[in-house]
This record gives sequence, structure tokens and C-alpha cells, in this order.
Amino acid sequence: MRRLEDREAIRELIARYGPLADTGDGVGVAALFVPDGSYGIAGFADANGRRAIAALLDTPTHQALMEDGCAHLLGPVTITLDGERATATGHSIVFRHGADGFTAYRVSANRWTLARASNEEWLVVRRENALLDGNAAARLLLQPAT
Amino acid sequence: MRRLEDREAIRELIARYGPLADTGDGVGVAALFVPDGSYGIAGFADANGRRAIAALLDTPTHQALMEDGCAHLLGPVTITLDGERATATGHSIVFRHGADGFTAYRVSANRWTLARASNEEWLVVRRENALLDGNAAARLLLQPAT
Amino acid sequence: MRRLEDREAIRELIARYGPLADTGDGVGVAALFVPDGSYGIAGFADANGRRAIAALLDTPTHQALMEDGCAHLLGPVTITLDGERATATGHSIVFRHGADGFTAYRVSANRWTLARASNEEWLVVRRENALLDGNAAARLLLQPAT
Repeated sequence: MRRLEDREAIRELIARYGPLADTGDGVGVAALFVPDGSYGIAGFADANGRRAIAALLDTPTHQALMEDGCAHLLGPVTITLDGERATATGHSIVFRHGADGFTAYRVSANRWTLARASNEEWLVVRRENALLDGNAAARLLLQPAT
Repeated sequence: MRRLEDREAIRELIARYGPLADTGDGVGVAALFVPDGSYGIAGFADANGRRAIAALLDTPTHQALMEDGCAHLLGPVTITLDGERATATGHSIVFRHGADGFTAYRVSANRWTLARASNEEWLVVRRENALLDGNAAARLLLQPAT
Repeated sequence: MRRLEDREAIRELIARYGPLADTGDGVGVAALFVPDGSYGIAGFADANGRRAIAALLDTPTHQALMEDGCAHLLGPVTITLDGERATATGHSIVFRHGADGFTAYRVSANRWTLARASNEEWLVVRRENALLDGNAAARLLLQPAT
């Protein structure tokens, strides 16, 4: 039962990311993380702490994406629980609107490390994201938790 | 436990939409909704009641989509329960087959309002859908339930 | 409660496919199936048994996909339980990286037949996959379990 609740809480937490990113809610995205959590986007940024994570949504890159029209779609995650910690892996696709309709602007691998706080709430400790453009390092993010 | 069952029932209900739409099953799509439910597609249609919802799948627009080949892919939903009511938000992507392969024909935001009937079954009261083409109104659909 | 656990186990099992396929882990993909399970990809292959399923990932087709960069994204599945058996249906999208960015290389319908083994573990008995390119047979895979 506890296992089911943990998995459901983690799935809900990760599902919230897409709508928050699409609406430019940096504070909302940062609140998915523990206060000293981090979000690494290979070749682009490695944001440490909620303030830096929230600031990612204020960058010209993200603002231009929102102006054009975008969807931060996530795939299903495979979740491995290990007591108060957990790992989840899965895809994220950023669709971007343009003159010729929508394109899959980014197709990425994601590895989420999560922790259950003393108040039972699950939060993200670290998210790693890398483009699946043939790079072996991106594929590594999708390997099963050990 | 009740909470887990409610969330699972809502996720299953929403997951059924894609396969029903792809197979042109208008009666099946309508049965996801309460009898006086509604489905609003910004700039295209606002169907009220099961008969009108079912009829959306008989339109030339939908029939042409099926002939070309299509997939109504949904993303994960973030679900907020509030007693006998619930709100779910998430993306939907319509892929369409053509001479050059598949394109993301529609990339949309969705807001589902749901209700639990007296027989414990969850059904959709209203679904709102809008293209994420930079329009602020579409982004609003993805805001957290209040 | 048993129902919730069954559904969660099936969802997790299917969610594992994408990361395993992206990383070329043929043995891992095969282990999602019962020993004499099968995986039919319409117009491409019908692999019977774990050894044949694992070999699909060693084909030049799959190796080229990994070299280019790919993501085997799955959509949500609708799950129908029937005692020790279950059926799940849903979409799978293969994104492929190329000179012009990412394209939706394959957009498919999937029908998964699953069984619960004596050790309580759910495994895939058969997966059928077909491109949603307007072919009626592909749409049939998405029909509700009877």
C-alpha cells in the first residue's frame, strides 16, 4: 500500500512538470525540487537550487519557446523505489509551433532522483536531461537503477 | 486507498480516449462523458451532450484523419481530487500520416473536469482542448486546479 | 487493492520497454516477456521466444536507429484485467534524429496480452504492433478488450 502511494506521488510530481513549464511557472517548477535540488540539461545549463531552477524559465530561450507555442510532453516513467529514495527514467519531448506547424524540437532522456521528506512528500533531488541525438551519454540516463 | 482508486479510475478513463478516437468509435468516446457532458475544441467545435460529442467523430475532418492514418496520443495527466469532483490537465498530440511520413498535426492543452457518479464511476463533465500555438488562452488550460 | 497492484505492475512493465529499446538492451526487452512470448511488428517481423525478441535489437535496422539517436516513447495504456490475464492497448512513437532534427519515424498501435505468473509477476505474452498509416488492421489493435 505504501509502495502504491509512493509510486502514485512520484508519477503525479513528474506529471506536473509539463504544464508548469508550458505556462512559464518557474516558481512552480522549482517547488517540485528539494530546496538544494538541481536540474542539469546537457550542453545548456546546470541549475543548482530552487532560485536557479526557477530562473531557467525566464531565459530568452524559454520565453521564445512560449511565444512560438510549445508543449513539454513527458512519457511514462519507470520508477524504482529504494526506501526514502527513488529513481525514475523516461522521455520528454518539447514540441514547438512554427510556420510549418509543430515540430519535435527536443527529444530527450531524463533521469530523476527523488527523495521522500519527513512530511511524506516526494520531491526531486536531481533531474538530468540530455538530447537523444545519438550521444551515448544520453542513453546512459535511461539505464535501469542499480 | 479511496484516493488511489479514484486516481486510477480517472487515469484509465482518460487513457481510453485515444484508442476510441483512432478507431472512430463516437459512441465509445461519448460514453466517457456524463450524459450532459461537453467537449470544447477551441476554434473548431463545442459539443454539448453525448449525441453531439459522438457526432464529432463522424465529421469529414475526423474521417479524413482516420483515412490518412492517425494517433491521438495523450500525455500523462496531473490529477487534483476534490471529493466527488476532480480536475486533470495534460497534453494531447494528434499524429497524422502523409506522403512524407508522420507529422504532429495538433499539439494541444487539455483540461478535464470530472465527477464521480453515485455508482462510483468517474466520468468527464467537460473537456476543453486548445492548440498550443502561442495563444495565451491555451496555456491557461494547463494551470493548476484551484 | 489487488486490482490496483496488478494495474501498477502492468503499467511499470510496459513503461520499461522504451528505455530498454533506446539503450539496445535486447536481453532486458526479452525479459519483459514470458519465455515463449512473442512480439509481432506488422510487415517487419514476428519474433517468437525470448531469444528471437532479444535479437530484434541487434538488427541493422535497430542499430542504425540508435546511432542516429532515437526515443521509443509510449503513450498511456488502457488496461483490462481478467483474473490472471490482462490486455493493454496504447500508442508507441519512435522519434529519430537526423540532419533536420527529430521526426516521428514510426507511429504505431499496440496491443499487449499479459499474464500473471505463479510468483505474482506480470509478464507480456504477446505484443502486436502496427503502423497507424491508415491501415484498418492497425486500428483493430486499439479496440477495447472483449
